[in-house]
Amino acid sequence: MNITVAVIMSVSVSLLAFLVALYFFFWVKKQPSSNTEIARVGGFIKKGANTFLKKEYMLLAVFAGVAAVLILLFLPHPIWGDATDNWSWKSNVFMMVSYVFGTVLSALAGKVGITVATIANMKAAEAATKGIRPSFLAGFRGGAVMGMAVVGTSLMGVSLVYYLTGDASSVLGFSFGASSLALFAKAGGGIFTKTADISADLVGKVELGIPEDDPRNPAVIADNVGDNVGDVAGMGADLFDSHVASISAALVMAFALDKSGHKFAVMVFVYAAIGLFCSAVGVLLARMGKKGGPTQALNLSTYITTALFAGLTALAPALLFENTGVAWRIWGAMMVGLFVGTIIGIVSDYFTNDTKKPVQYVANASKSGPAFTILSGTSYGFLSVFPPMIGIAISALAAYKICFPITSEPVSGMFGIAMAAVGMLSIVGMIISNDAYGPIVDNARGLVEMGGLGKEALDITDSLDSAGNTVKAVTKGFAIGAAGLTIIALLGAFMSEVNDAAQAAIDAGIQGIEKITGFDILNPVVFFGLLVGAALPAVFSAMLMLGVDRNAQRMVAEIHRQFNTIIGLKEGKKGVVPEYEKCIDIATVGALKELIPAGLVAILSTLLVGFVGGVQAIGGFLAGNIVSGLLLALFMSNAGGLWDNAKKYIESGHNGGKGSDAHKAAVVGDTVGDPYKDTAGPSINTQVTVVSLVASMMATLFLTYSIF
Amino acid sequence: MNITVAVIMSVSVSLLAFLVALYFFFWVKKQPSSNTEIARVGGFIKKGANTFLKKEYMLLAVFAGVAAVLILLFLPHPIWGDATDNWSWKSNVFMMVSYVFGTVLSALAGKVGITVATIANMKAAEAATKGIRPSFLAGFRGGAVMGMAVVGTSLMGVSLVYYLTGDASSVLGFSFGASSLALFAKAGGGIFTKTADISADLVGKVELGIPEDDPRNPAVIADNVGDNVGDVAGMGADLFDSHVASISAALVMAFALDKSGHKFAVMVFVYAAIGLFCSAVGVLLARMGKKGGPTQALNLSTYITTALFAGLTALAPALLFENTGVAWRIWGAMMVGLFVGTIIGIVSDYFTNDTKKPVQYVANASKSGPAFTILSGTSYGFLSVFPPMIGIAISALAAYKICFPITSEPVSGMFGIAMAAVGMLSIVGMIISNDAYGPIVDNARGLVEMGGLGKEALDITDSLDSAGNTVKAVTKGFAIGAAGLTIIALLGAFMSEVNDAAQAAIDAGIQGIEKITGFDILNPVVFFGLLVGAALPAVFSAMLMLGVDRNAQRMVAEIHRQFNTIIGLKEGKKGVVPEYEKCIDIATVGALKELIPAGLVAILSTLLVGFVGGVQAIGGFLAGNIVSGLLLALFMSNAGGLWDNAKKYIESGHNGGKGSDAHKAAVVGDTVGDPYKDTAGPSINTQVTVVSLVASMMATLFLTYSIF
Repeated sequence: MNITVAVIMSVSVSLLAFLVALYFFFWVKKQPSSNTEIARVGGFIKKGANTFLKKEYMLLAVFAGVAAVLILLFLPHPIWGDATDNWSWKSNVFMMVSYVFGTVLSALAGKVGITVATIANMKAAEAATKGIRPSFLAGFRGGAVMGMAVVGTSLMGVSLVYYLTGDASSVLGFSFGASSLALFAKAGGGIFTKTADISADLVGKVELGIPEDDPRNPAVIADNVGDNVGDVAGMGADLFDSHVASISAALVMAFALDKSGHKFAVMVFVYAAIGLFCSAVGVLLARMGKKGGPTQALNLSTYITTALFAGLTALAPALLFENTGVAWRIWGAMMVGLFVGTIIGIVSDYFTNDTKKPVQYVANASKSGPAFTILSGTSYGFLSVFPPMIGIAISALAAYKICFPITSEPVSGMFGIAMAAVGMLSIVGMIISNDAYGPIVDNARGLVEMGGLGKEALDITDSLDSAGNTVKAVTKGFAIGAAGLTIIALLGAFMSEVNDAAQAAIDAGIQGIEKITGFDILNPVVFFGLLVGAALPAVFSAMLMLGVDRNAQRMVAEIHRQFNTIIGLKEGKKGVVPEYEKCIDIATVGALKELIPAGLVAILSTLLVGFVGGVQAIGGFLAGNIVSGLLLALFMSNAGGLWDNAKKYIESGHNGGKGSDAHKAAVVGDTVGDPYKDTAGPSINTQVTVVSLVASMMATLFLTYSIF
Repeated sequence: MNITVAVIMSVSVSLLAFLVALYFFFWVKKQPSSNTEIARVGGFIKKGANTFLKKEYMLLAVFAGVAAVLILLFLPHPIWGDATDNWSWKSNVFMMVSYVFGTVLSALAGKVGITVATIANMKAAEAATKGIRPSFLAGFRGGAVMGMAVVGTSLMGVSLVYYLTGDASSVLGFSFGASSLALFAKAGGGIFTKTADISADLVGKVELGIPEDDPRNPAVIADNVGDNVGDVAGMGADLFDSHVASISAALVMAFALDKSGHKFAVMVFVYAAIGLFCSAVGVLLARMGKKGGPTQALNLSTYITTALFAGLTALAPALLFENTGVAWRIWGAMMVGLFVGTIIGIVSDYFTNDTKKPVQYVANASKSGPAFTILSGTSYGFLSVFPPMIGIAISALAAYKICFPITSEPVSGMFGIAMAAVGMLSIVGMIISNDAYGPIVDNARGLVEMGGLGKEALDITDSLDSAGNTVKAVTKGFAIGAAGLTIIALLGAFMSEVNDAAQAAIDAGIQGIEKITGFDILNPVVFFGLLVGAALPAVFSAMLMLGVDRNAQRMVAEIHRQFNTIIGLKEGKKGVVPEYEKCIDIATVGALKELIPAGLVAILSTLLVGFVGGVQAIGGFLAGNIVSGLLLALFMSNAGGLWDNAKKYIESGHNGGKGSDAHKAAVVGDTVGDPYKDTAGPSINTQVTVVSLVASMMATLFLTYSIF
């Protein structure tokens, strides 16, 4: 198969995915909605989410505009030429256009997700009055619109960029566009959602003792908006970014392995296209059976997708590719990724499932007070890091060893790692659908409560929501694992880019520049980078958490003000409504203010290390960033999920139940865990990806202009 | 100067330090003590501490015995010969004897510390009735006995081992003896002290509202015993270990640089001896002036020691060594270490001092509840990691670059890093004295309260205690920084050992073994090790914290039992005393039970990685272990210190003062921070050192018998 056919195949499958997304979109839209109260509250949520998105995108447009100009001027080479005299301004234009294309598609994916999610939540709420099965389907298909749109867009985008520019470096520009937007979308959305969530709970549940989603609470709409902008739009941008990055890393190394024949790039596209196809089949088949709960329904469709992918791709080596032996090796690397992804999901489930020991231990320790909730949860969070890190270590090693014999260059081993990441992310269309289902049914639950649809409907949405939480822990572990392999592969991509630049310099006869063979830990410049890179995720997550902390304090003050000054609000007097939009405004303004410094610290420290220590320091920097980023991301995600479920476990009647001292302690744990798992933890992945891509794009400059 | 003279100089200065220690010991002993209540309670503490130490040492004797046999059989080569046929059973005997010598000296240092501390606490308490100056002096000189004894022992031990065996590998055995004991002493002592501290506070202060150190509290003696076994004996073993490890790492590379002339080893001994001499002068001069508080007194003597060291060592290149240029370079590396140590201390102070923003921010955030105490403290803890890690990164790079021109081998650069660590630890005699002063005056405060010596004496010991806490944060940062440089140097020592072994194999004509030039991050085996090594400190600290958590639950149950069943205890009826020894017993048994698995996990995972992935995997493993170990140790130490002081800041009347909601929230933070800063945080350093030493000792076996 040649590259043209492979790209046509990718684009076709992407178009198929768009068709599925459109079908689901109109299906969701035509579901009945008659309740005016739901329409009114749902309208508030929709308006709030769109307002935030608009303000965020305006801010990001400025950022992206500045970045685009800088890229045009400097990357991959200064546009006025460099010492090699072997440059073309075209490559700068290609990279800039690819970058802008990446940001636009990423923003678009977020917008589509928000649009459908703020419709599907109302439909799922209304459907809950008819039974759990239609309500499930409305929620799931709403999520699947997002899943299909995101993965279709990313696959189509990356295929077109690669094909039209004929250059793997431009793909990195596209990927950086997606990642830089994801960084801000994830961080901004994460700060927004947790500001609102924590503040609403703190004043509502803890101080006043009113239920979650009580319409008297001024922050309740902001909380629901947060689910959409954080968990739907932010998460969509995040997985868009991971998917693009995994394919980009694979393409850079595929290009290095075969620059003219594109033999390996063909395989990347074919396998990615098969993955999207299988996800499309999986989401079309998904529905709740007469037996079994919503969790089983979500899991079953994931299993179907996975099995189908393993089977179909196993046919590819024999049917599609000339070099069957090599294709089998690459298939093997992908299966390693898929297998380890599953293992990591199971481990995340163990540490966050309330039928297992860790959650029950923490729930029990909560009887001795919040300090023990925190200590035991932190401890289990740290323990939970071990199996996935070992798993990623083993899978990277295995994928490398499987693919290393393809050529005698180390890059073929790194290509194996990239393909393991592609394998892990192949079913990402399904994963996103499952993940976006969560906030939709969470919102639906709120609408059922605020719309007064009755206890039965509330029970139904409660059970749908709980399934969303269970599946979320697994998909989150999966996403972190995939990001882990992707960023290891990006380290290989960085070396490829450096050596391309070095080759160009050597060809031009420039003295003092050599190709690199690796990054030696005992080289003090590498070790310097290693330490700085390892410190970065800690600082980055601290800035985001302090952002949530500061912002929540502002919002708590506003909620207090409303309860104190709006007469009749606390008592729930008919016709008295809080000023919801004030809270939404605080969350919006605060989130946008807090997200910029954290993002800049990540990018600027990369530039600083690169211009001081050169490419060797960056090699260490990326490695340190990867290991400590994985460590903290896994810790925060799992500890946060664990505390959330320990609280729910107590609320379901254990250790004294709601209102007991153990429950109060568990609420403290949950509040701490909220920004861990929904703000800082998932943003760290994106931070590491962004830094890796910046490094690769800057390879030429770091090689030429560093101090050491 | 030749090696014999240098060793004689080292041993002489060590003997001088012993004389100073003896002088202080008898000075402390002859201070008046007439109060029988203090003698009675002090006797309880002394007995409890000695009982724990005895049980702990019995357990460790078994461990050390097993380890000694294994060393004799297998290290550095299997005693029945290896493939090179170039072995001698003597080297195994040397290593085993060195190992046992290291464990015995380390245990002895702990024992001396406990003995004097449990006397000095009573003397300082009694002296507090006469004024702050005599009380300060009793506390400080008690601590200085420990300081002089520990550093004298370690310097003498390492000098004798090097001189008598003529072999740097045996020094590693000695260092491993010290480290393995320190690992268990620190972890066991840390679990003991925090079990007692948390349980006593939880039931006493929080539930019953009785003061700290109230004699009715059954855990109060255990709490005071804990200060001694954790902060005195454990900390002493820890710094003994760091000091020995820094000198050992330097000696291994000094030996590699000049195997017959010992030119560089001479410098190591001379500089270390000068450091101890300056510390001895510093502790002799230390006393409180008529103006200025105890903090100033502690700081002033540290400044004197540091300045004296910088000055005296600056004379050495010109006066003592032939190759003045090289000696100047090494001096420069040491000054880099000393300078960065000071910077790190200042940063730790910023993040934990209650006159600075972080502590005040956390104290203020506590008004919104414990979740905000934890979130903001965690965030500042993560932020606090950045400056020291950058500092260590820069100092390692600078020390390397300063010393690299000594020879053309990278080992001379790594020797520079080792000498930076030696420079940083040169004033460790002073640091230990300051550090041991803390728990002594903390105990004295308890004795003043329990002995009813009046408000004035209590105020005096309160102010002495507070100075101890302030200085502690600085010395802790200093200790972590020094350990950071030491373990980086140990990575260089590991490579030296591997290449020695490889050379022996090559000389014997064995095929397939090569010398290594470094550890390439892009080698998948190295990356595998990097990920596993990075995960280890998280697991290790989680196990220790869960140990504290479990053990504290047992002790809380026991305290409840006593208050419920001993009639008149709660009311403070005269003559009714709690069963103190029951609580001491729980802390002892629990600590010993919990410390073994954590230590074994660290050692066994090193063996596993080494036998699976060989020396390359171990290179990555050590690097990952170092960066994540530093990250977590700094985070935990600083966050713990911050929470401690935020609580004290509120108790001193801010944000509502004692008993307010903010105070309750801050107590939660302090309880979480206790095992962070006193159990897990400081043990991580030792874990990393132990792992590094195990790796170096096993170099030959990993080279010969690994799977990959």
